[in-house]
Amino acid sequence: MNEIRVFSPATVANVNCGFDVLGFALDGLGDEMVLRKVPEKGIKITKITGADLPFEPKENVVGVAGLAMLNSLDLDFGFEVEIHKKIRLGSGVGSSAASAAGIVYGINQFLERPISNLELTAFGMKGEAIASGNEHADNVAPCVYGGFTLITGYSPLSIVSLPVPDDLYVTIIHPQITIKTKEARAILPKQVSLQNAIKQSGNLAGLIAGLYTEDYELIASSTQDVLVEPYRKNLIPNFDFYKQTALENGGISFGISGSGPSMFTLCKGVKDAGNVEVALTNALKLKNMQGDSYISPVSKFGNRILEQK
Amino acid sequence: MNEIRVFSPATVANVNCGFDVLGFALDGLGDEMVLRKVPEKGIKITKITGADLPFEPKENVVGVAGLAMLNSLDLDFGFEVEIHKKIRLGSGVGSSAASAAGIVYGINQFLERPISNLELTAFGMKGEAIASGNEHADNVAPCVYGGFTLITGYSPLSIVSLPVPDDLYVTIIHPQITIKTKEARAILPKQVSLQNAIKQSGNLAGLIAGLYTEDYELIASSTQDVLVEPYRKNLIPNFDFYKQTALENGGISFGISGSGPSMFTLCKGVKDAGNVEVALTNALKLKNMQGDSYISPVSKFGNRILEQK
Repeated sequence: MNEIRVFSPATVANVNCGFDVLGFALDGLGDEMVLRKVPEKGIKITKITGADLPFEPKENVVGVAGLAMLNSLDLDFGFEVEIHKKIRLGSGVGSSAASAAGIVYGINQFLERPISNLELTAFGMKGEAIASGNEHADNVAPCVYGGFTLITGYSPLSIVSLPVPDDLYVTIIHPQITIKTKEARAILPKQVSLQNAIKQSGNLAGLIAGLYTEDYELIASSTQDVLVEPYRKNLIPNFDFYKQTALENGGISFGISGSGPSMFTLCKGVKDAGNVEVALTNALKLKNMQGDSYISPVSKFGNRILEQK
Repeated sequence: MNEIRVFSPATVANVNCGFDVLGFALDGLGDEMVLRKVPEKGIKITKITGADLPFEPKENVVGVAGLAMLNSLDLDFGFEVEIHKKIRLGSGVGSSAASAAGIVYGINQFLERPISNLELTAFGMKGEAIASGNEHADNVAPCVYGGFTLITGYSPLSIVSLPVPDDLYVTIIHPQITIKTKEARAILPKQVSLQNAIKQSGNLAGLIAGLYTEDYELIASSTQDVLVEPYRKNLIPNFDFYKQTALENGGISFGISGSGPSMFTLCKGVKDAGNVEVALTNALKLKNMQGDSYISPVSKFGNRILEQK
């Protein structure tokens, strides 16, 4: 095998009450990357479509994550890489994470002794860091593992793969506004009430139990974010209106994807997800907001191979 | 059936990172109560052993919980009740909750149309309120449901029954000091850092996942309470020493049971639980602290019938 085409999915992080710890993978939307094994060590980015990104590996998420892995494993070969961005940068569904997770997954296919998902995530985080300013696994982990991932620790990195109820779909809407991750961080309070902290932990615990038992009512009642959403929603005009629209039209949970501006609605079944998409598209229009939308199952799969030669 | 003898187990609430939401039932230690159906409405407490408690129903947890249920269901009969307290009052393993949960469970056995565990918990909470000052389900819920219970909401009351890994044991030590629940409440901060709130929620999520997957390592790594223990441990002299002793001798998780002074150690298997008990008993002695201890599986069962006539 000399050449491989990899798909790396868009992901939703900060899943409501799972702020900073819970993410999941989407299907249908994702970046593609072609890796060609070459004798020269290192990463050479030969083509980029879909976004205006640096070709210099040390300035590119793909290059940084890929080089971190190559150097650490001390491989005596390298890769030419084509990057085909399909996930819009800054849309809040893990664009940089898909690039970072995709390259390390791709490299792993060429190894005699492939490394673990946990190690892949750690290398992917190196790339994520140059895009977002800090090493975090919120989007990289679901991109690598697929399904729902829970980050239970960073030192050492510890990730739990959670089950995905069979019929769980998600509707994404992306209003065309810009939110800077830095601003989204700055708007958060440093202190919260103990009462709300406990409420949030109980909600997340309920959500986790709901995933294990496929209890959609429990998932619905548990997905209340009392710590972060009350602040971050102020960065998205008409957030409450979109939320109400989603929940009144078949959605069971609603929240900001990552640090926004995309918003996700969890639904039981593709039909409800479709209804929510129609309702939210109309809601965007009503507020004279440009935007796009799509629906997807919560994907049980992360990165995958599309083609190999 | 005219007479019934009921066992209602001791329980552990505030299970580490599950402060205020997670509890579990013990086995072997619990109160017993005899209920005799009589034509006169209401509750008449005819005998109390093991503790100095009021016979006046409106001043007794058993009476208050029982009357709440009898009045609400408008039953045309009543009960004579003997209360045999085996759980020491104020020891932190749900003494009042066992009384409250036991009476409503007992009454339920005499109904043509028994009510649900959720309703029983709600009535039990009425009794708990006169002992602890507020209606809470922390101990009543595991006493009624058995196993681990997660309280996901109070309005409406919502409880999730969680699975118990087969080999999960607990060692309880009870140093003979007095902690007032009020004082234990007062020592808590009103505000906590957002960072710690997120850490706690991730820990609880990990613990829940660990229970579903019987992953003892995950249970061990997740049971870190960063919100409450740092404050409440100051009410228990030598807490850190007991904790270290427990974790070094086979314990996987350690924490304050309820608002103390009892402390619980979760262990994989009865052998480790025994080792921890020996080590902690020695630790108490070393600190010249009077106390007692026992080991139990985390019980899958709550209240139960011992005898009926």
